[in-house]
Amino acid sequence: MRFLHTADWHVGKNLNGFDLLADQQAVFKQIEGIAKERQVDAVVIAGDLYDRSIPSEAAVRQLNGELVQLNLTDHFPVLAISGNHDSATRLGTGASWFAKEGLYLNTSLDDAFDPVTIGDTEFFLLPYFGIQAVRNHFGDDAIRDVNTAITRIVAAMQEHFTPGKHHVLVAHFFAAGSQHTADSETLIEVGGLQAVATTTLAPFDYVALGHLHNRDALHDDRVRYSGSPMKFSVSEANQEKGVWIIDTDPFTAEWVPLAPVHDIHRLTGAFADLVADDYHPRDDFYDIELTDHERIPDVLNKLREHYPKIVSLHRTHAARQIDTNHARARRQQSPTDLLADFYQQTMGIDLTDTQLKWASDALSAVNDGEEE
Amino acid sequence: MRFLHTADWHVGKNLNGFDLLADQQAVFKQIEGIAKERQVDAVVIAGDLYDRSIPSEAAVRQLNGELVQLNLTDHFPVLAISGNHDSATRLGTGASWFAKEGLYLNTSLDDAFDPVTIGDTEFFLLPYFGIQAVRNHFGDDAIRDVNTAITRIVAAMQEHFTPGKHHVLVAHFFAAGSQHTADSETLIEVGGLQAVATTTLAPFDYVALGHLHNRDALHDDRVRYSGSPMKFSVSEANQEKGVWIIDTDPFTAEWVPLAPVHDIHRLTGAFADLVADDYHPRDDFYDIELTDHERIPDVLNKLREHYPKIVSLHRTHAARQIDTNHARARRQQSPTDLLADFYQQTMGIDLTDTQLKWASDALSAVNDGEEE
Repeated sequence: MRFLHTADWHVGKNLNGFDLLADQQAVFKQIEGIAKERQVDAVVIAGDLYDRSIPSEAAVRQLNGELVQLNLTDHFPVLAISGNHDSATRLGTGASWFAKEGLYLNTSLDDAFDPVTIGDTEFFLLPYFGIQAVRNHFGDDAIRDVNTAITRIVAAMQEHFTPGKHHVLVAHFFAAGSQHTADSETLIEVGGLQAVATTTLAPFDYVALGHLHNRDALHDDRVRYSGSPMKFSVSEANQEKGVWIIDTDPFTAEWVPLAPVHDIHRLTGAFADLVADDYHPRDDFYDIELTDHERIPDVLNKLREHYPKIVSLHRTHAARQIDTNHARARRQQSPTDLLADFYQQTMGIDLTDTQLKWASDALSAVNDGEEE
Repeated sequence: MRFLHTADWHVGKNLNGFDLLADQQAVFKQIEGIAKERQVDAVVIAGDLYDRSIPSEAAVRQLNGELVQLNLTDHFPVLAISGNHDSATRLGTGASWFAKEGLYLNTSLDDAFDPVTIGDTEFFLLPYFGIQAVRNHFGDDAIRDVNTAITRIVAAMQEHFTPGKHHVLVAHFFAAGSQHTADSETLIEVGGLQAVATTTLAPFDYVALGHLHNRDALHDDRVRYSGSPMKFSVSEANQEKGVWIIDTDPFTAEWVPLAPVHDIHRLTGAFADLVADDYHPRDDFYDIELTDHERIPDVLNKLREHYPKIVSLHRTHAARQIDTNHARARRQQSPTDLLADFYQQTMGIDLTDTQLKWASDALSAVNDGEEE
């Protein structure tokens, strides 16, 4: 059997205020195209279908339309779970009807142990869970960490394994050994979940993970993140996005990249060079770092004439936190030396001789005034 | 064919802060029982399934469970529309899957013209709509009032009538001739929709309406409100709640009452009598009007010892708005007369002679003080 593994669609997410729905729909069409072209037997979506527990009506309409297309129009079986960004209750509404048409959407830990069988493979759909749900399920308050929880869950799933079938786990958590860099996943959530040791997952032929947006966050042949289908933060600017095509017999995993509609770029340079640059596509998203020292009036609006979709703007030589130690030593410095130190610490460069002269003259004038 | 007509479930509504979910679930079980006992061929729910466009997770879970029970477990075809309290988009999510199992949930005007056929009857499911949606549907900006809109809609539906079938309209609007008293429907909504003349609806064998919570709001053999299945405001305290059982051939309409789990009562009486009353069920809801004149310290908490679920408390002799006219005439009244008038106007009773004496003495003391 062959299936497509994707995750972290975050339908309805915005990027620093920019609506991504149209881009998300375009990327969905690419995923649908890959599923058709590769003639997969199922599509796996490993959690975070929505970006928020109460998505906007526009987001609800779009995800509903996408699932109608995949499942009812294209007739793909779809295997999906809720992630930490989804409301299990809201996302799970209607799931009893969906399953009758082959859209298996599980949002409840209690329903994770009864696999969905498609072809030669049993799929176990494990939604994002809290430790308390695991304690409740097993009636065991001694379960206190995620690895104990996962060990118990996997053992219970193994009891339902049909020999001779392949076994795939679809899950949404932070796997140990993975590198976490993206800021579009909430660090608290990652920390709160702790890290699942991949050795615990060995009974499965494949583990289709969601949660981290970078497929390179983990390197394990049989335990993979698909990552998000598009970039959702500046920290993901250099990541390649795509989906996995998994074959179960023999096992192969093939990466199929997805093309961004509007890419995210990090640009570093002087204002004059950036506004003269006609290489970068106007409608992409930009994180811009200005190397200029001077104040540039109305700089954001001026940059927007060339880069309408700036998601963040910073300066290499931004005013920095000053060193507030050594107060005693400072009292012995002259006012001009103090000013020169302050300027150097906050701006990262020294005052020029001319600037020093201005400062010195101004201080003298003030002192003269005091003596009048 | 025989169907059950209900509406205005408002799942998730609270009554002045009291959660009604458990009562709503119990009333749902009564409706399900009636549907089974009367062996209906379908259940019609004419809008306002939820109380809010973004219902709570508990409300979502409960309505989902109720529809699973009716449709997937009991195998009743269900015909439902969105009302003005529902979000058409949120409620309509998943409807493409629901329809395959016989849960026909229409939330879009554009889908109202293609009837659902069950047995000898064609059901036209017309959700709550705004005039603009009608203009868009017909491409006619000249449609400016609800009766023009309904006339166009009914004419378009008639084009889809199959001769020899019965034709039922399921809709959610304010029908002309109906009496509007309940305060749990929003008056602005009723006003905004204007009133539909029932004559416009003559082509239908039956019109199953939702919107008004009182089935007695309209008296028309073939156009009926079912009302809400339970009381949702004090203004509904004296209404009988229930469902219609409609037979199409020959046409009959039978009212089947629903028993409230916790009734709403309006009580009027003196504090001493109300707290001595052991006739009224402790766990019902109460609107209480106190006939006492005296101030009773901590009265609400004292009453709550006997009636824990008080939804409103007022006084027959409450402080009323005073008459601010006749300012010129007032200037010529003595202070004591002014006070006596004020007391009479706000409290509804006259000052006693003793009270008048106190007032007069106090005013004299003040005047004496001024002259010192």
